[in-house]
Amino acid sequence: MEPIQVGLLGMGTVGTGVLRIVEGHQEDLQKQVGSEIRIAKVLVQDKSKSRRYALESDRLTEDAWEIVNDPSIQIVVEVMGGIELAKTYILAALEKGKHVVTANKDLMALHGAEILAKAAEKNCDVFYEASVAGGIPIIRTLIDGFSSDRITKIMGIVNGTTNYILTKMSQEGASYEDVLKEAQELGYAESDPTSDVEGYDAARKMAILGTLGFHTSLSFPDVSVKGISQISKEDIQYGKSLGYEVKLLGIAERQDDLISVSVQPTMVKKTHPLAAVNGVFNAVYVYGEAVGETMFYGPGAGEMPTATSVVADLVAVVKNLKLGVNGRRIFSPYKEKKLKTPEQIASKYFVRLHVDDKAGVLAKITQVFANCEVSLESVVQQPNHSIADAEIVIVTHDASLASMNRVLAEFESLEVIQKIKSVYRVEG
Amino acid sequence: MEPIQVGLLGMGTVGTGVLRIVEGHQEDLQKQVGSEIRIAKVLVQDKSKSRRYALESDRLTEDAWEIVNDPSIQIVVEVMGGIELAKTYILAALEKGKHVVTANKDLMALHGAEILAKAAEKNCDVFYEASVAGGIPIIRTLIDGFSSDRITKIMGIVNGTTNYILTKMSQEGASYEDVLKEAQELGYAESDPTSDVEGYDAARKMAILGTLGFHTSLSFPDVSVKGISQISKEDIQYGKSLGYEVKLLGIAERQDDLISVSVQPTMVKKTHPLAAVNGVFNAVYVYGEAVGETMFYGPGAGEMPTATSVVADLVAVVKNLKLGVNGRRIFSPYKEKKLKTPEQIASKYFVRLHVDDKAGVLAKITQVFANCEVSLESVVQQPNHSIADAEIVIVTHDASLASMNRVLAEFESLEVIQKIKSVYRVEG
Repeated sequence: MEPIQVGLLGMGTVGTGVLRIVEGHQEDLQKQVGSEIRIAKVLVQDKSKSRRYALESDRLTEDAWEIVNDPSIQIVVEVMGGIELAKTYILAALEKGKHVVTANKDLMALHGAEILAKAAEKNCDVFYEASVAGGIPIIRTLIDGFSSDRITKIMGIVNGTTNYILTKMSQEGASYEDVLKEAQELGYAESDPTSDVEGYDAARKMAILGTLGFHTSLSFPDVSVKGISQISKEDIQYGKSLGYEVKLLGIAERQDDLISVSVQPTMVKKTHPLAAVNGVFNAVYVYGEAVGETMFYGPGAGEMPTATSVVADLVAVVKNLKLGVNGRRIFSPYKEKKLKTPEQIASKYFVRLHVDDKAGVLAKITQVFANCEVSLESVVQQPNHSIADAEIVIVTHDASLASMNRVLAEFESLEVIQKIKSVYRVEG
Repeated sequence: MEPIQVGLLGMGTVGTGVLRIVEGHQEDLQKQVGSEIRIAKVLVQDKSKSRRYALESDRLTEDAWEIVNDPSIQIVVEVMGGIELAKTYILAALEKGKHVVTANKDLMALHGAEILAKAAEKNCDVFYEASVAGGIPIIRTLIDGFSSDRITKIMGIVNGTTNYILTKMSQEGASYEDVLKEAQELGYAESDPTSDVEGYDAARKMAILGTLGFHTSLSFPDVSVKGISQISKEDIQYGKSLGYEVKLLGIAERQDDLISVSVQPTMVKKTHPLAAVNGVFNAVYVYGEAVGETMFYGPGAGEMPTATSVVADLVAVVKNLKLGVNGRRIFSPYKEKKLKTPEQIASKYFVRLHVDDKAGVLAKITQVFANCEVSLESVVQQPNHSIADAEIVIVTHDASLASMNRVLAEFESLEVIQKIKSVYRVEG
């Protein structure tokens, strides 16, 4: 049997893991696919650099086109990251009939539809399991495992950095700034943490999951995003005392044909399985009409977990090659995109207010909710001596986002409210 | 496009769910597979019986051979249960070149190898996702999602009845007998609960999962089994006070080529994700060398969850039909079976003893552990006035099963020990 020749674009963390698995598990892989899988050429930025995983120098190249244009290479694995160059190489590889495995969520969330269309045109596979939730095989679960069901809700903790920060804040009562600094020192957060802490990374992953779950082409701009940088340790403690953990949740929902996708800090009831997902772990909770509640939990990042998903995709491409059926199972969304308006997005909310400590305050505040047709599940008022006034925490019943926005607008002009300290979505 | 003709063996709970999904989601399914999927004939015991899901009487038959021998039927879905008849029909259907989807764990755990061999010979698909953990797509996760990894441990809560009973015992302090009775009244336990409470059902599922995870043909008799009928509410309370929940865990482990598979009541550390899996839910925890820890959670039984898995398999068979690649991805274990001896099976243990309340008792007991080379993690001794003697709870470090058995044998002849109240494996 001829070996299957693979080109690897990128030899950072994930690329090194891919080499380790493909070369370390070669015997097991051959048993499964019937051929040697050979990583023939690897794109690096600097051939002369010393590496943790040593490779013969004739397998290294600094020119991606040496891989994309090499007719002996049948599969291109893209783990270099970034958007424009990666897209250029992937489209060129597909144009030449090569199959593609990518771990690039930024690319798939922005240009997934274009890449999948090119793959379908060329009868090529494009697999991207590693782009969401690292080692958790959630993409094939949505495509194959739940092919028979109608998925109505996907909620994910899909960013390990922010989950690490929130877990530490919850468990140690520490401040956001202190934990972020520690996470950066430990390498769990980038020196520029914007993409993680502002929720953009999670939003990209939710666009991919929503597309798969709802058969509708969704991309990054369709996701409404709020990050964790404004979360105070007081919010987390108040949440805990009411039975909630604060998590950065991506939420994709569908009612009939109407969809909404968002990422925001959310108060999650402690009895919900997502509330117990701690540290850098990821989890995706899927609700299907027939199956009911399911959850998939595992490492969301890291060299070996992510590489596991990349190589599982590589195995799938090779099996398809053997069967001659590449490109025949490309996932193509067939439903028109109809996004919900703020009037149609409903959830419970947690609101914390600093108010004057005098008679009639609570009546005025609850009257605003009543005016906006938002009904209340619980109200807790207590004196807060450290700030010499009173604090009110309110949890609403299901209300539309539009109604909640009207409530908050009225609060701005209500004199007895000193400050709207925080507003959270509530789930579970 | 000609409709794909399917024969359904059995119209009980799962069979009815399959009809509901296939007929209720017909439009979505057609979009995915490009053909109508038509359940042409359904095997029932009594055509004249009235049913929750009404079917035209010419689609019902009381004779399975009308389905197995019908040349227009391409796929047989077996949800009738039982072993001998189901096996006969499935082998006959494969012999005639029909593809098979089954939810039958009893059958697959005993005769899976024979059925898969016949399928491979005839180039037919046999899919059985619903046989383990109902709505959780764990089988395709092991086959496809972790194809690149080496799985070393699978731990599962794979029986909803026993998990319901243990959850109630833990949360309400109720006795096994009382909760079992309640579970029977609610329909969560059979009137003869043996297969569930003695762990046989879980053992069958673990044989299937172990086979898939370790590429080694394992069957029911390879699994060492202990059920939950001897668990006392005291054990559960002692466990809780030491930070454990008692769960009926199926554990399949591999070190190099040596395998062990067991089902037993286990003390699971509360910080482990399996400890929080409550009620009738199932969860399978998978440890892979590269991916690390993952867990898959969802409903383990029930009409619609189980039917979701059956129909997802049906969709996979139809996709393969369209691609002309049926029978090409039959999972075939290629590793020789080498089961661990009791000397090679290692874990921590929890031991509860009733002992005489006098000087030197603890020294004698700990000496037995020392003699057998079992080291101890924690020892708690306290007077137990209700029984007018003392109680000792010991948690060991990792010890071989053989060593533990030697400890227990020595205890039998140790006069200061009145009774070995309980012994549990410890995980997490």
